[in-house]
Amino acid sequence: MAEKGTCHYTAIPSVRRLPLYLNVLKEMKAEGNEYASGTVIAERLGVLPIQARKDLAIVGVAGKPKRGFPIDELVKAIEHFLGWDNARDAFLIGAGNLGLALIGYKNFNEKGLNIVAAFDKNPDKVGNRIKDCEILPMDKLEDLITRMKVKIAILTIPEQFAQDITDKMVAAGIQAIWNFTPRTLTVPDNVVVENVRLSSSLSVLTNKLKDLLGNEN
Amino acid sequence: MAEKGTCHYTAIPSVRRLPLYLNVLKEMKAEGNEYASGTVIAERLGVLPIQARKDLAIVGVAGKPKRGFPIDELVKAIEHFLGWDNARDAFLIGAGNLGLALIGYKNFNEKGLNIVAAFDKNPDKVGNRIKDCEILPMDKLEDLITRMKVKIAILTIPEQFAQDITDKMVAAGIQAIWNFTPRTLTVPDNVVVENVRLSSSLSVLTNKLKDLLGNEN
Repeated sequence: MAEKGTCHYTAIPSVRRLPLYLNVLKEMKAEGNEYASGTVIAERLGVLPIQARKDLAIVGVAGKPKRGFPIDELVKAIEHFLGWDNARDAFLIGAGNLGLALIGYKNFNEKGLNIVAAFDKNPDKVGNRIKDCEILPMDKLEDLITRMKVKIAILTIPEQFAQDITDKMVAAGIQAIWNFTPRTLTVPDNVVVENVRLSSSLSVLTNKLKDLLGNEN
Repeated sequence: MAEKGTCHYTAIPSVRRLPLYLNVLKEMKAEGNEYASGTVIAERLGVLPIQARKDLAIVGVAGKPKRGFPIDELVKAIEHFLGWDNARDAFLIGAGNLGLALIGYKNFNEKGLNIVAAFDKNPDKVGNRIKDCEILPMDKLEDLITRMKVKIAILTIPEQFAQDITDKMVAAGIQAIWNFTPRTLTVPDNVVVENVRLSSSLSVLTNKLKDLLGNEN
């Protein structure tokens, strides 16, 4: 990890784990606890206690000796750190099966994301309504981004169109893109992109399975 | 902005990056190259050259001085390392929108995965065929895992059923689970699980966006 020092992303693995801490803390609260010890949290999550303390340190809540972390306060601090205490409007670009699956997740609005409309270029889909989300024609996208001041776009279109749509959305005011396409997007410095790379995830699975079966055969 | 392209991936293990190297290498091959220099590969991927060399070292192909890596050999080595040179049969558990999206991806069989059947407990879906993939009733799952010696399951069912189905599948012979549910699965040591955690990905996006908008306002 010689590159670690050159990078301001060192906290990212911790950030990725924070939702798991939220789950554990809400579980412990539901069991009637007001405080959660770092050791118990770590145990439930399957990480080392020192890791749990380091992860939780980034949200700035201190544990109390012998009692641990005040659960309500810690939950609030994590949600605030993640920007989940203030759900922002988001547009879904592409209403295919993956897009419909994302609209279907009930609890994104507890996770900072409020999908207010979907866009698709297929005229047969335009006008349909899934949950509270209307499917609008693609040619309205840029105008609505600007008028509704929407900052987040979720990209689930075929990859060959990904960069072109990204350029248009960024010009219209989008500042965060949740990219489900395999394409690496080029964006200005003031736009954040988070990639959901299924092939990267799959590579870990198949590599581990190969090792596992190789050892057994 | 400190958030430069060179930093995006430093915290992610090398294995997760290998599919991105594959894309770049195939691109360079298509452009007529036989060799690819580590520096050019790194540039196209937006990582440091030292990172690229470290990542590629795990597949055991050496670059040649002044020429770089032999592309065909490196592609083969990466695919072999990932277990992608030998697609294994997989069952999809849950034929909802997300499951249908996964069946729809054309190129999983180039990535070690051959989805041969889907299972769903909804009788209206059972018997349907999507692409070459038939939707079968849930009560056939365990028997077919054992009889067809299927080792990989892709889990896209509601999270409350995830552990129960996992236990049954593992007992029937499943050894690798690609888990799209938010539930943390408990499995024996000889079973690998790879989690696709959308909320972890979302946490990075919303956290960065919060920082970005905070700086601007």
